[in-house]
Parts: sequence; structure tokens; C-alpha cells
Amino acid sequence: MTRPRNDNFLRALLKEPTDFTPVWLMRQAGRYLPEYCETRKRAGSFLQLCKSPAMACEVTLQPLARYNLDAAILFSDILTVPDAMGLGLYFSEGEGPKFERPLREEWAIRDLTVPDPYNHLRYVVDAVAEIRRALDNSVPLIGFSGSPYTLACYMVEGASSSDYRRVKTMLYDRPDLMHHILSVTADAVIAYLNAQIESGAQAVMIFDSWGGGLSAAAYQEFSLHYMQRIVAGLIKEKDGERIPSIVFTKGGGLWLESIADIGCDAIGLDWTIDIGEARWRVGDKVALQGNLDPNVLFASPDRIAAETRKVLDSYGSGDTGHVFNLGHGISQFTVPERVTALVDTVHDYSRIQRKK
Amino acid sequence: MTRPRNDNFLRALLKEPTDFTPVWLMRQAGRYLPEYCETRKRAGSFLQLCKSPAMACEVTLQPLARYNLDAAILFSDILTVPDAMGLGLYFSEGEGPKFERPLREEWAIRDLTVPDPYNHLRYVVDAVAEIRRALDNSVPLIGFSGSPYTLACYMVEGASSSDYRRVKTMLYDRPDLMHHILSVTADAVIAYLNAQIESGAQAVMIFDSWGGGLSAAAYQEFSLHYMQRIVAGLIKEKDGERIPSIVFTKGGGLWLESIADIGCDAIGLDWTIDIGEARWRVGDKVALQGNLDPNVLFASPDRIAAETRKVLDSYGSGDTGHVFNLGHGISQFTVPERVTALVDTVHDYSRIQRKK
Repeated sequence: MTRPRNDNFLRALLKEPTDFTPVWLMRQAGRYLPEYCETRKRAGSFLQLCKSPAMACEVTLQPLARYNLDAAILFSDILTVPDAMGLGLYFSEGEGPKFERPLREEWAIRDLTVPDPYNHLRYVVDAVAEIRRALDNSVPLIGFSGSPYTLACYMVEGASSSDYRRVKTMLYDRPDLMHHILSVTADAVIAYLNAQIESGAQAVMIFDSWGGGLSAAAYQEFSLHYMQRIVAGLIKEKDGERIPSIVFTKGGGLWLESIADIGCDAIGLDWTIDIGEARWRVGDKVALQGNLDPNVLFASPDRIAAETRKVLDSYGSGDTGHVFNLGHGISQFTVPERVTALVDTVHDYSRIQRKK
Repeated sequence: MTRPRNDNFLRALLKEPTDFTPVWLMRQAGRYLPEYCETRKRAGSFLQLCKSPAMACEVTLQPLARYNLDAAILFSDILTVPDAMGLGLYFSEGEGPKFERPLREEWAIRDLTVPDPYNHLRYVVDAVAEIRRALDNSVPLIGFSGSPYTLACYMVEGASSSDYRRVKTMLYDRPDLMHHILSVTADAVIAYLNAQIESGAQAVMIFDSWGGGLSAAAYQEFSLHYMQRIVAGLIKEKDGERIPSIVFTKGGGLWLESIADIGCDAIGLDWTIDIGEARWRVGDKVALQGNLDPNVLFASPDRIAAETRKVLDSYGSGDTGHVFNLGHGISQFTVPERVTALVDTVHDYSRIQRKK
């Protein structure tokens, strides 16, 4: 297998020289795009959209048709794994994801097993293959999963939460049960991401949305430890090409040094840390992905361009090892035309940087 | 004026030797206490409770009757200042604070003026005096205010928000308007805190609840800069006693060095940073207040004691300069009896540490 025609994203993750700084946006296939809303309406529900490989493929490609993005990311939900574990994922209008059978009893926790991705998550594996065919080697495809701790938050709470009280109670009072959930879930994520890689994902990203809400010690024990186990269990190479991994803990800026030590190729940064300072802290160990405040996209195109240049300048003039992204998913309220200012500035300005 | 009989809290903030590590809890007078709920019911509403000096005094003292706390904190709301600026604070059941007239028009922003605390905020000044009388020099009384950026978040959004989209849009697109709001609000906070000090507050704390949602650069420009101005404008000494100031940015762990540089006496820490690491980073510049995860209080008394000892050990065995606290306000779902395990462990274990 050969690399995609535009392989700048993979090269940046592997710290090989690039022609320009590659860019993609978290949640780039999402509600801010009218064409996405149309497909979702046709699908009937968000979950049906995720579970149809043809429609998941369709929305994955939509942002690439609009913008010169340097990577596609599988359209899916982070909660597919607990759903495949039998918890019964559903979405109630305007309230976000919920589980019919949250983990509240010790017997239910002891009964958890690792689902076979080729059976219960077949729709994801098939979507990856279909997207790869549709991309026709133009840009790389990113696969992804939620982190075990983030998945456990939803599995125990049964929904998103403002304080994660139930999961924290279990963590402090019954760490043995919490470790059991995390251990089974980590094995499930390894199998899931490896199935995505076998099916064509050319890089993988682990989203640790809630790890940043842990104390420093609890983060190491209950979140990072399991992400390390996942990274160690991933397929490292396929058809002679390295499959890079990106770990993103929202609110994890305090712990970059220890994240850089788990063997991942890149760290995703939220917008609260200066990317130049982050680079200074992790040195040459990993590439960095990020980290514009998604709210910048509500400003005028000139301001968007100026803030985008600041991130590029902070990382370092014309150096590789940087994948430009937002520091969090793009807001559903973003005006699609504004995204062009961001993407074009990343490409144009980083080319100028490289000529200096 | 003499110091309170138990002045360990003030001594720790000033890095003088203490007999034990002093402790108080953010939101210690709150909904987890049945006696608080009773008083609030009697008041009719949360706002009427805040606006009655007698009842504010009553609830301020309630947690001190239950626990051996080493400081009292004025019972009030962080949004009293914008309310006094004419924005019309109200609380709709189960939805948190709102403003009748959020700042949406340039003319309204240009019209903002600094309210006279002895007029529009008289009820706070009177509550401080009444609480001081009731405390009868037993423990110190802490006064407080929201930070300008945190107040501006509510003033522009009109309510709490999941993404602070309106305030961020203004910040990136019209920084001149945002700076005008912050500048007037900073002057208002200076006058407000100085009135609390004149009325009897023996230490003051600035709560920057939302500064942690800013990028590193925006935090410096839009939040920290104005807190520095406030600290510089505070009355430093009253009746021969230093009035220490504490600055707490939730999610501000990345920026401790620059917070330590603004002239405050102490930094409040949320639970995500290891307090020993925080101490190593700020050195001898400031005292530290914090930082147990409030969710630890949902665990068994033994676990609470163990996690409390970990924070004390991490700060350093028997050293001064530490005020024990939670890393965030105590949850309304806390069982009151559990708090005893925390408070007693802080006192008992820190005395043992000092004997080693």
C-alpha cells in the first residue's frame, strides 16, 4: 500500500518534513454543515446515521468537499463500544447520549465482556472500508475511540453529568470495581481500534474527554494507565506503513510530560495551553495537534486569520511535528464560510514560514 | 484590633508558623446543610437570603457550629456587583443565575459605571459587620468577589453557558468593548472589596470561575491583568494587620507562575493539580489553598481521611503556607456527617506532621 497523495498529516505525526502544516478539525463532519443536517434528517436519527456505513461515509466526506482539509476522520460516536457491550445507547432529543442500562450493580460490572468488533461493531468496520474506497488515497483516514475513563464516565452515570458524582464515588470508594470496568473497556478499545486499522484507518486518535476532571494522581491511575495499555496493544504497522496514534485529554495540559511517555506519536492539545510552551515541555518525544479556541471561528475572517497565525508562530516557524486543529470540536453554531479563513491561513502562512 | 483567637488561617496565608493546617471549605454554608435549607426557605428566595444581613449572618455561622473550621466566609453571591451595576440579577428555579438586561449593545457597555458599594451594595457591607460582631473574634472572616472576567461572562451571556460563545465572540471580535467592561468591573470590584475590608473582612478572595476556559494568551490579557489591578488597588493593612488576598482561577493550574506574580498572598488551587508540584512551581512567593476533589466526600470516612492525608503529605510535612480546602465548592449532595472526617483529619494529621 502506498501513502495517500496528500500525506502531510501522516508526515507531521511522524515528524517527517512537510510542505505545509496539515490541518483538520475535530467534529469537522457535524451540525454546522447544512449538508450534514440534511443527511442526518434522511437517516432519521443520529444513531441510525452512525450505524449506516453508506451515510457515515457520506458525511465523513462532506467537509472535504468544502475545505482543503488534510485528513478525514471516521464519522461515528465515542459510545459505540459500551453500546456493543450491551448498555443500550440511545439519544433523547436535546439531552445528549444516554444508556438504558448504566452500570450500577456489582454483578453487572463483573459480567462485562469484550465485544467482538467484527460482530457488534461491524457497521464501524464497514464504514472505515467504505470511506477508504471513497477517499481513493487522496488524504489519510483517522479512526478513533473514546478513552476507557471517558467511556466509564458515561457507563456509570448513564448520561453526561455536570459533576460525575457517581463515577467519582465509585473511583474513590470502590477502586476495584472501577479498575475492572476500565480494564475490560481498555481491551475492548484495543480490539476496536485494531479492527479499524485492519479495515483501513491510517492513524488513530483516543478521545479522553473527561480525564481532565480527575485529580493528578487519579488521572495517572484511572485514565492514563489504560491509554498506555491501549497504545501498547495497537497494531503499529500495516503494509509497511507506521500507524500513528494521537492521545487527547481535554484539560490535560498539566500532564503533558507523562502523556508523552506512554508511547503515542502525538498529543492533542486543547486551547488552554500555549502550543509553544507545550512543545518546549515535551521536546522531541511526540508531535502536537491543536489548538485554536473553537470560539475564534465566531470572529471576523481577519481575526480568525490573525489568531491562526499566532498558533503557527507559537509552535515554531516552519517546523514539522505540528498538525493544526481546534482545541475542541467545532461548534454547531459556526458559520461554514468562516472555516475557509482558518484552513487557507494554515496552508498559506505555513508555506511562507517554510520559505523564511 | 487584635487577631482572632484562632488566627491559624491568617498565619498560614502570611507564611507565619501555625499550630496545625487550617481548613475551611468553599461553599461551606450551602445546600448540603439542612439548617441552611431551612433558613433559605424562610428567606423566600436565594436572593432575599443574600440581601438580608441578618439571615446572611445566620447561614455564614451555620457550618462553624457543626465543624471546627478555621475561617468563616461571607455568605453572598458572586453576581452582586453586576446586579448593583443595573443588570437585574434574578434566579429562575433550577436554572441558576440570570440577568434581565445582559450586555448586548455597545451603548449599554459604554454606559456602565462603578456602583457605590455603600449605596447599592449596602446589604453586603452590613452583613460583613454583623458577621464580625457575631464571630466575636473567634475565627477570621473572608470577604470575596467574582473576578472581572467571570462577572463579564455572566454579564454578556445573561446566564451561565456551556461554551461562553457570546463572550468569546466579543473578546475575539471586539476586544475594545470587552476591555471596557472588564475595566469598569475591575474598579467596581476594588471598591466592593475595600468596603468589605473597611467593614471587617480580614482576608479577601477573588473567584475566577471561568478564566480557566480562556486560551493562555487570552487569560493573561482578559482575566489575570484585571485581577492584578484589583490586588494592587486593595487596602493592604487595617488597624495594623495585613489583609491577605487569595486568587482562585478554576482550571488555572497551567498559569500558577504568572498568578503568583500579581502580588496576591495566596493562590487557590482546584483539585486537578498536585499541590506539591504547585508548591515547587511557585516557590516561596505565595501561600497555597486547596485542593481535595470535592467528590472525595462521597466516599467512606476512611477513604476521606486517606485522601485528605495525601494532600497534606504532598504539600509538605508540617510546613506553613497551606490552607486546606476543597478544589471547588462542596456539592449539595454531600452528607454533612462526612465533612467531620475531613476537618478532623486535617487538624489531627497536621499536628502529627508538626511533631515529626
